[in-house]
Amino acid sequence: MDPDAVAKAFVEHYYSTFDANRAGLANLYQEGSMLTFEGQKIMGSPNIVAKLTGLPFQQCQHQISTVDCQPSGPAGGMLVFVSGNLQLVGEQHTLKFSQMFHLMPTPQGSFYVLNDIFRLNYA
Amino acid sequence: MDPDAVAKAFVEHYYSTFDANRAGLANLYQEGSMLTFEGQKIMGSPNIVAKLTGLPFQQCQHQISTVDCQPSGPAGGMLVFVSGNLQLVGEQHTLKFSQMFHLMPTPQGSFYVLNDIFRLNYA
Repeated sequence: MDPDAVAKAFVEHYYSTFDANRAGLANLYQEGSMLTFEGQKIMGSPNIVAKLTGLPFQQCQHQISTVDCQPSGPAGGMLVFVSGNLQLVGEQHTLKFSQMFHLMPTPQGSFYVLNDIFRLNYA
Repeated sequence: MDPDAVAKAFVEHYYSTFDANRAGLANLYQEGSMLTFEGQKIMGSPNIVAKLTGLPFQQCQHQISTVDCQPSGPAGGMLVFVSGNLQLVGEQHTLKFSQMFHLMPTPQGSFYVLNDIFRLNYA
């Protein structure tokens, strides 16, 4: 399958899950996964999902602007770089964000998130 | 050495080289390196440096806002995620950008850039 199509499908799945059922993201991370969220480092799927479900807003909607991807080396991983806007319910303005994912293949032929770095782009 | 310190030192070296002598970036890339610049994919150190030196501005200055880093897996690589501002000479406004690097170790104990993805953050 075309890597760009895989990256786009992952991104759509990730953000639609985030916006509809944040706890469902647990399946995309593993024990060795790492999230850096606005500079805070969090290790492992349970802690990552606790961070994401504990963010101080209930409903949100991600709008994707760009998706770039590259193979990450001999282990069959893939780097995905996303820019977009985050709309919080009840807020007029959207927040611009950039996020990168390092996806690694699973034995089942799917991918999990090994690395995840998220930053808001302050104006 | 502390990975965050390595990442910060790399970022300072990369952008000071970019701003002072763009052709000097050739040493940081190898044949298998890949750059995605505003969606355009470029392979290999010579092509990457030709792209960067051919950008339609002569002098510029990068100001770094944030640097995040994570180990990228068993191969000893490191992911570095940067946000900052780009000031072009003769332009009043700065351009916000986000960029990620996947650094891989060299036999000499240094790092080279395997993956590089750059995006301007349009307001």
